[in-house]
Amino acid sequence: MTDSPEARLNFLHETLQAKVLQGLTQQSHPNPELARYRRLLAEYPQRPGKLVRGMLTVLSTQAHGGSLELGLKPASILELFQSWVLIHDDIEDDSLLRRGQPALHRMVGMPVALNVGDGLHVHMWRQLFSAGLPAAVTEEFLHMIERTAEGQHLDLAWVENGRIDVSEEEYLEMVRLKTAWYTVVTPLRLGALVLGEAPAAEFIPAGLDLGAAFQIRDDVLNLTSADSGAAGYGKEFAGDLTEAKRTLILAHFFASVTESTAAEARERLLKPAVERDKADLDWLLREITAAGSIGYAQSVAEELASRSLPLLRDVLGSLPEQAAAAAAVSLLESLVNRDR
Amino acid sequence: MTDSPEARLNFLHETLQAKVLQGLTQQSHPNPELARYRRLLAEYPQRPGKLVRGMLTVLSTQAHGGSLELGLKPASILELFQSWVLIHDDIEDDSLLRRGQPALHRMVGMPVALNVGDGLHVHMWRQLFSAGLPAAVTEEFLHMIERTAEGQHLDLAWVENGRIDVSEEEYLEMVRLKTAWYTVVTPLRLGALVLGEAPAAEFIPAGLDLGAAFQIRDDVLNLTSADSGAAGYGKEFAGDLTEAKRTLILAHFFASVTESTAAEARERLLKPAVERDKADLDWLLREITAAGSIGYAQSVAEELASRSLPLLRDVLGSLPEQAAAAAAVSLLESLVNRDR
Repeated sequence: MTDSPEARLNFLHETLQAKVLQGLTQQSHPNPELARYRRLLAEYPQRPGKLVRGMLTVLSTQAHGGSLELGLKPASILELFQSWVLIHDDIEDDSLLRRGQPALHRMVGMPVALNVGDGLHVHMWRQLFSAGLPAAVTEEFLHMIERTAEGQHLDLAWVENGRIDVSEEEYLEMVRLKTAWYTVVTPLRLGALVLGEAPAAEFIPAGLDLGAAFQIRDDVLNLTSADSGAAGYGKEFAGDLTEAKRTLILAHFFASVTESTAAEARERLLKPAVERDKADLDWLLREITAAGSIGYAQSVAEELASRSLPLLRDVLGSLPEQAAAAAAVSLLESLVNRDR
Repeated sequence: MTDSPEARLNFLHETLQAKVLQGLTQQSHPNPELARYRRLLAEYPQRPGKLVRGMLTVLSTQAHGGSLELGLKPASILELFQSWVLIHDDIEDDSLLRRGQPALHRMVGMPVALNVGDGLHVHMWRQLFSAGLPAAVTEEFLHMIERTAEGQHLDLAWVENGRIDVSEEEYLEMVRLKTAWYTVVTPLRLGALVLGEAPAAEFIPAGLDLGAAFQIRDDVLNLTSADSGAAGYGKEFAGDLTEAKRTLILAHFFASVTESTAAEARERLLKPAVERDKADLDWLLREITAAGSIGYAQSVAEELASRSLPLLRDVLGSLPEQAAAAAAVSLLESLVNRDR
């Protein structure tokens, strides 16, 4: 392999996107409404996404000595997981946009969208069963989805209970479960598991740290990406404030400001999302910036990255296929250094 | 086996209920919110239900010559399927009650409930993977869930598109997919599949007919169970009209009445559920009764049962274990003859 990491990633992205859609293209059905149902199953998977989790899975497989074809199997299944989870997440958060287009439940209503998410969930398991992979791969998917659902529960229970001022520790526990497992830990581990090998022990602690850094970077971008707008970032600018999403930024903010500022922020953040207007968002963004909370979150992301990336570089650097390992490292670095 | 079919069913119900909860009892967790999450996973499974699908699965397994222990595995997994589907159904339909208690999303809010449904869905697959059953059992579950989601889509798309006057044919296609597969066809087929045998071909057409009859009977009961009330039937009386649920009763009604009556019914049924008041429900119930639609639906249920039950009796009567087969037949008969 003499391709540059960038060329390799571009080729991989295209190949993986085709693989994800492979099982979703049979969209004819004698009942036109069921033909539409099948098209809806493919709606999120076919929207242009970065596919970083799937690409990391393929690169880890190749770094461990496996083929592109082998790596594409768990990678495409992981991307299908991401698709059904996003459909349900968007319902739970009542998000406006997903990958630059309306969230599914805003196109077809909540009930149809929820059921399409379930249909895609089943489709994911069908792909896994027919892939002929080791049983440990199935166990990894089960474990990953269980952790993701636990993290999602923590996040949603805060909303249910009107808790907005969560602590940094609570936030980090949530995000490790909700995001880090399926974004970094499982993709890296799958590369060994598909080959019947035991994954390096470092993939778990370092992957949890890097995955948390990825989400924190995402949250920072949400409040600093006004210039690129929806077309660049794919989600609405400051949508996290519209949705009153619990972030490390808010955790730092509530731990830093006076009680009266905190009380006002709670009031503005805990009212129903439809009542939160531009004046609320402007006030929140100004106070959060003044408290240095965006900068603080960015520094935590960098610290988490600086203690996990060297570990992951070492482990990946000891694997048999170094071109793939280098591309994997490059991709991991981009997770925490990206601008969009 | 010298037990009466009734005694056998009672014992089986108790044993199966314990088996369903077996994997859901570990509810401790260092994070109290995650301990609560685990309790929520067990919320629907632990509510007293009839477990007819699981019991039919065990009886079919035993009739085919398998052990109680073997039959309990797919049976408990099928009941877990029913639980997560009901959580999501209740959200999609915004139901009030489930098994005589508030629907989960009315206890904890839609977002937490949706995620608990996903968590239970994953738990179902974990139980299936660890059960050590033949691959054909996994394929049966995949096929069954795919059909159920398709039927659910048809039903929900009618709501999405404001279609209330569906035809009898459209209704029957929907209910065969949404209800009959998982209520009758798959339970009967699993009894053979867990033993590595090919299920009788008749299980599909006859099971689809009997499953449709079961749902039609359920819809008839919903409009005739005023005396037993929520405590007896477990759902609100005439809740199908509150929810504007598409039923064979409505299909017959719209095909029978004058255009002006149909137009008034559409208006009353297509307004938002919260605006549908007692006057609407009384009017609808009176007109539906006057059109003979409840009686018609009951007659269709009886006709579907009278052409499927003899076929199923024959097939089950030729299986090795006749005590279990007799109990299965008795259970199938009760699906269409029940009063609650």
